[in-house]
Amino acid sequence: MTNPNPELQARNSIRFETRTSIEQVEESQDLAPKFDKDGLIACVTTDAVSGEVLMLGYMNGEALKKTIASGEAHYWSRSRKMLWYKGATSGLVQRVVEMRIDDDQDAVWLRVVLATGPKAAPASCHVGYRSCFYRTVELKTGRIGYAETEKTFDPKLVYGDAPNPTIL
Amino acid sequence: MTNPNPELQARNSIRFETRTSIEQVEESQDLAPKFDKDGLIACVTTDAVSGEVLMLGYMNGEALKKTIASGEAHYWSRSRKMLWYKGATSGLVQRVVEMRIDDDQDAVWLRVVLATGPKAAPASCHVGYRSCFYRTVELKTGRIGYAETEKTFDPKLVYGDAPNPTIL
Repeated sequence: MTNPNPELQARNSIRFETRTSIEQVEESQDLAPKFDKDGLIACVTTDAVSGEVLMLGYMNGEALKKTIASGEAHYWSRSRKMLWYKGATSGLVQRVVEMRIDDDQDAVWLRVVLATGPKAAPASCHVGYRSCFYRTVELKTGRIGYAETEKTFDPKLVYGDAPNPTIL
Repeated sequence: MTNPNPELQARNSIRFETRTSIEQVEESQDLAPKFDKDGLIACVTTDAVSGEVLMLGYMNGEALKKTIASGEAHYWSRSRKMLWYKGATSGLVQRVVEMRIDDDQDAVWLRVVLATGPKAAPASCHVGYRSCFYRTVELKTGRIGYAETEKTFDPKLVYGDAPNPTIL
């Protein structure tokens, strides 16, 4: 007897169609995502409750299928060059409430509910803020300010000595 | 006598700093955006009133400076390969209420108020919908559905015979 894995079965049944026409891509019900030359599609993730933009990430085909099949956000980590199950280290899993795709199908939008981690309040940013977009850019001057004045968690406590994903 | 142009003066005074350390990029007040190998930075644009994600676009350095200086969204059109003042053709200008930048400064978030065009209700998508993300992707199955059931404007009336920006 095989032990059926519902998530794997779901993942295997998801089809990405070949892109054949503008009408198909924009107006049909074909899921025909466009991956860039690195094999990635951009993903905006917002908090389903507050509406706040939490992060902008990237997915390869596998991450996109895993996200659809499991209902939890998976990305491609461009700094670590690996599939990234969000929350694997921190516990700050993102449960997807709704997924959307844009007109030319080169971007997806996830509305998520944030989990609480064992050592962190619900948040999304490796620096410790709720949103990765914790800073403002002032119009006219370009001066940086802070939209979030306090960190939500201590990144040292949550990530330990894991390498910082920011690339210069 | 020269005729001072306040927007140009503002634009010329905006400085992008050289990226020197993770601490500077993540925790300082230096505006040090990271442009990718095509010279672009990703930009998420949301409706300041509804919180809805309207589009995901890209900016080059000039578009970013023009957006900061003018308070109206400018992008780099990857299909037309030119600076793109949003609303130039349609009148659907995006007035920026707040701009944010993310932890590693490779993405910006604009909260905008949509203008009404001469031939279109407030909207953002060349297909005629309010948001470019007018379709849902069903979890588990990957089936496409519609989040917006009706178009907000007639794209033929607004864009005429202008080439469709979607690339297959």
